[in-house]
Amino acid sequence: MMFDRLCIIGVGLIGGSVARAARSQGLARCIVGYGREQEKPNLETAKRLGVIDEYFLDIGPALREADGVVIAVPVGAIESVFEQLKPYWSDNCIYSDVGSTKSNVIVAAGRVFGTVPANLVPAHPIAGAENSGVEAALPDLFQRRRLIVTPLPQTEPSALNKIQVFWERMGAQVSVMSADHHDAVLAATSHLPHLLAFALVDMLGRQDEQCEIFKYAAGGFRDFTRIASSDPTMWRDICAANKEQLIPLLHQLKTELDKIEQLLADNDGRRLFETFSYARNARQRFLDQLEN
Amino acid sequence: MMFDRLCIIGVGLIGGSVARAARSQGLARCIVGYGREQEKPNLETAKRLGVIDEYFLDIGPALREADGVVIAVPVGAIESVFEQLKPYWSDNCIYSDVGSTKSNVIVAAGRVFGTVPANLVPAHPIAGAENSGVEAALPDLFQRRRLIVTPLPQTEPSALNKIQVFWERMGAQVSVMSADHHDAVLAATSHLPHLLAFALVDMLGRQDEQCEIFKYAAGGFRDFTRIASSDPTMWRDICAANKEQLIPLLHQLKTELDKIEQLLADNDGRRLFETFSYARNARQRFLDQLEN
Repeated sequence: MMFDRLCIIGVGLIGGSVARAARSQGLARCIVGYGREQEKPNLETAKRLGVIDEYFLDIGPALREADGVVIAVPVGAIESVFEQLKPYWSDNCIYSDVGSTKSNVIVAAGRVFGTVPANLVPAHPIAGAENSGVEAALPDLFQRRRLIVTPLPQTEPSALNKIQVFWERMGAQVSVMSADHHDAVLAATSHLPHLLAFALVDMLGRQDEQCEIFKYAAGGFRDFTRIASSDPTMWRDICAANKEQLIPLLHQLKTELDKIEQLLADNDGRRLFETFSYARNARQRFLDQLEN
Repeated sequence: MMFDRLCIIGVGLIGGSVARAARSQGLARCIVGYGREQEKPNLETAKRLGVIDEYFLDIGPALREADGVVIAVPVGAIESVFEQLKPYWSDNCIYSDVGSTKSNVIVAAGRVFGTVPANLVPAHPIAGAENSGVEAALPDLFQRRRLIVTPLPQTEPSALNKIQVFWERMGAQVSVMSADHHDAVLAATSHLPHLLAFALVDMLGRQDEQCEIFKYAAGGFRDFTRIASSDPTMWRDICAANKEQLIPLLHQLKTELDKIEQLLADNDGRRLFETFSYARNARQRFLDQLEN
């Protein structure tokens, strides 16, 4: 048993899936949940479904005797969670999170604790689903998914190791890298595509109101814009938290679009073909990796 | 029987599917195919599969006694097909095409014939598939798909009507609009998304060569970039043919990206949320239409 008492802060899709996966792999003797007053119906559901053994609306009792804490709240709420945890912070407990951005977690911890605690291990499981809420939580959500941990120099090796093993036992493939590198990689492969999809559909939606263009859109458009149906609050928080990485990528993309515009204006079919072919081959490289 | 002898110029995925659909709906007594010498193996396959009754590598015999011709070649090849058709052009035949851009078809016809013939009805079935080639041709590819016809003032009403009915019998929902309007709508909902997907994957592919970012990309990225796996030759031709519509849209998109960058820089979470929410709702409107 890795944890005697595991406390999940925020029992939604990801927090609930951590609880279900930890339970199905026998990683915690007891799993409790914490949420705010307005999350009571959700926590009731989590308890009824057996995702958690008990829930609390007060942070103190929720943390009592916990030797593991997983923070699974929206990216924008991490600092206020640290504020709540601070009075109860325990050296006998290991803390981790699941946020989609990592530098902001470290900055927030530094602001609240003065220095980032050695028993806090920032982590990010690269997994999600179209649905949200604890009803959608799955015990195998992390199977064969990537998990990135971003330790600091002061991070206790034993705490880091325990979090790595915890996620490996839940089926994830664990990578270790700096928070900055994590944020740069995720900005490119996740945050920028989401921002682009939102931007395109925002722009075209306004044209559609004037002259019904969506009527003639087909399957390619559906796939391309799928991520524009993602939760706006969650993505506002992620984009804001990672704007230092996102803004330079937006500039790069605009340079790329300028290049392509120039090729079109110049009727440079050869280089247009080369660009499209390079992209097609690069995507194939991505697909080959996704399958392995 | 709508056509006694239907000639398909270019028997690939779309041309082959027109042949299969026309046969399964009993719209043509005899269906023949035409292609260039290097397409002989493909035409053999088409004949063996029963997609066409006969094929020709010479345009004259292919057109003999044809009362219907469907041109299903890549967008960039339309003008040279008109040149080939010109010596055999017949008033007893109706001509149509399936190109993804329409103004270029009209311009090409004008260049070759002096004025666009009254029995040429430009058309575009909004359908496709991941695969290409006659082996992938399906008799129901156009079922419940949109088909846009873009007649000119001189287009013979009887020819226009016959092409409309032909596509309706193959299951398509037919809309009539000007070629310019068609090209503007498709630039927005199809050509710009393809260009964007190619641009993004071209840019990120180069970063991946340096530091393995695709390793950490997930399902959202796979869907968003699916159209970057499209055929580079086909899309080079389409983008080049419709650059007059595409370039202004690229400018609009860059303005939209500038707007979003400013919201990020200003920490304007409220307007960022509004933009993402608007996009999400607009996409839902598109999905609702796609289902009906």
